[in-house]
Amino acid sequence: MQELLPAENILYLGDTARLPYGSKSPETIRQFADEDVRFLIARGVKAIVVACNTATAHALPSLHEKYRIPILGVIEPGVEAALACPNAERIGIIATRGTIRSHAYQHALALRKTGLMIHGQATPLLVPLIEENWVDHPATRQVLKTYLDPLVEKGIDTLMLACTHYPLLIPVLQQVLPADVRLVDSATTCAEHLKKELTRLDLLEAPGRDGALELHLTDLSEEFELLARQFLKKSPGRIHRAVLGI
Amino acid sequence: MQELLPAENILYLGDTARLPYGSKSPETIRQFADEDVRFLIARGVKAIVVACNTATAHALPSLHEKYRIPILGVIEPGVEAALACPNAERIGIIATRGTIRSHAYQHALALRKTGLMIHGQATPLLVPLIEENWVDHPATRQVLKTYLDPLVEKGIDTLMLACTHYPLLIPVLQQVLPADVRLVDSATTCAEHLKKELTRLDLLEAPGRDGALELHLTDLSEEFELLARQFLKKSPGRIHRAVLGI
Repeated sequence: MQELLPAENILYLGDTARLPYGSKSPETIRQFADEDVRFLIARGVKAIVVACNTATAHALPSLHEKYRIPILGVIEPGVEAALACPNAERIGIIATRGTIRSHAYQHALALRKTGLMIHGQATPLLVPLIEENWVDHPATRQVLKTYLDPLVEKGIDTLMLACTHYPLLIPVLQQVLPADVRLVDSATTCAEHLKKELTRLDLLEAPGRDGALELHLTDLSEEFELLARQFLKKSPGRIHRAVLGI
Repeated sequence: MQELLPAENILYLGDTARLPYGSKSPETIRQFADEDVRFLIARGVKAIVVACNTATAHALPSLHEKYRIPILGVIEPGVEAALACPNAERIGIIATRGTIRSHAYQHALALRKTGLMIHGQATPLLVPLIEENWVDHPATRQVLKTYLDPLVEKGIDTLMLACTHYPLLIPVLQQVLPADVRLVDSATTCAEHLKKELTRLDLLEAPGRDGALELHLTDLSEEFELLARQFLKKSPGRIHRAVLGI
C-alpha cells in the first residue's frame, strides 16, 4: 500500500496482545475485529482494510452491516487475482484453520466460476515458522511438503496464499512445488483494490506529498520490530501502545 | 492434580481467547494474569495454581503482592525436582521466549545451588507442533535437533521441560537426546507441591469423595476438546465460556 499509494497516511493497528486470530472461534474473532474497527474509526480514518484473512473470513459481513465507512477485506482481491488467469481450474488454498473452516474463499471462488475444483488445506504451523524466522530451515521444507503433497497429487494449477504472512515463503514454495503451479498472493491485489476503491469514492489524497505511517500495537513485544523490518524492509519508526475496548 | 488430590474440586480457567502467553510482553502477561486470578477468586476458590510457566515467570511476584489467597507457580516445583538429583550440574532449560527471557528459572536455580552451568533455549515452535498433533512427525524431530544440539554439545546432564505442553514430547525427546540426560517435568512435582501446601494450610478436602472438574475457557474453539482429551485421557465434560475483566 505504501508503494502504490505513497501520499496516503496509514494508521496500522496490530492486535499483538491477542494474536493469533487464526485458531480462534468465529464469535471471538468478530468481537476482536469490532473492537479493532472502533479503535480506528475513533482516530478518524477514512477507510479500513482488514489485512487478515481470518478476520475477513469471519467478521467482514458483520462489520459491513454495522459501519458505514468503507471496509475492505483481503479475500475478494485474492479471489479476483486467482481467477484473472483463464486457465485456473484446480485451486488449492493454504490458510489458518479459521480461514479454511469458514469456507469464505471456497464460497467466493465458487460464486464467480462454475466447475472449479477447490482444495482447502489448513497450515497452522507456517505462521510460527515464519515468526521464528526459519523460512530457509529444512524443517520448513518438510512441513510444507506434508501440507502440500496432497494438493499437488490432486493436480492443482493455482495455489492461493490465503494468509498475510505467507508471501515471505514464496521462494521456498517455488522450490517445493512443481514449476507449473501458479502462486497467488492477495497482498498486492489488495493494495490495487484499495486504490480503485479510494479513486471511485473520491477519497484519494492529492499526489506529491509523503504519507505518514503510524503503528499501534496492543502489546509491545520485542519480536515485532524485527518482523516489521522483514516486511517493510526499513525501520518501522515509533510504535504506540493501543488500548482497545474503551 | 486429579490423580494426586482426587477429592478436590478443580476449577480450570483457560484463556484461550488470548493465548499463547509465551510470546507476549511482561506487562501484558501481568495484566492478563491479574484478570485470570480475579475471575477465579470471584468464584470462591481456596488456592490458585498458575499452571503456565510464562505467567509464573512474569506475574507470580506481583500476584503475591496483591492477593492474600495462596497462589502457587510451576517454577519452584520444577527447580526443586531438577536439583533433587545431587549430580545435576549442567542444566538445560527449554521454554517459550517469554520464560527464557525472564531468567526466572535461571535465577531460581542459581539461588539454590552455586556452580551450576545453566543453558536456556527458547523453543517457540514446540507448542504449535504439539497443538497440530505432530508429536511423531519427522519435522518435530528436526526442530528438536536444531533446538537441542547446542545444549547437548554443552554437555547438559539435566533438561528441564519448562512449559506445560512439553511433557507430551517426552517419548520423542528420549529418542533425540543422549540416554544419560535426565528429563525434568514440573507438572508432577507441581501437583505434589500443591498437596503439601494444602496440607500445611489445613485446606485439604476430606478424602473419600469425588472432586468435580469444571472447565472455563475465554474462547470455545473446536481444538480444545481434542487437546483436553490428549492431556486428561478422557472427555473433559461440559465447557463454560468465561468472560474476563468484568
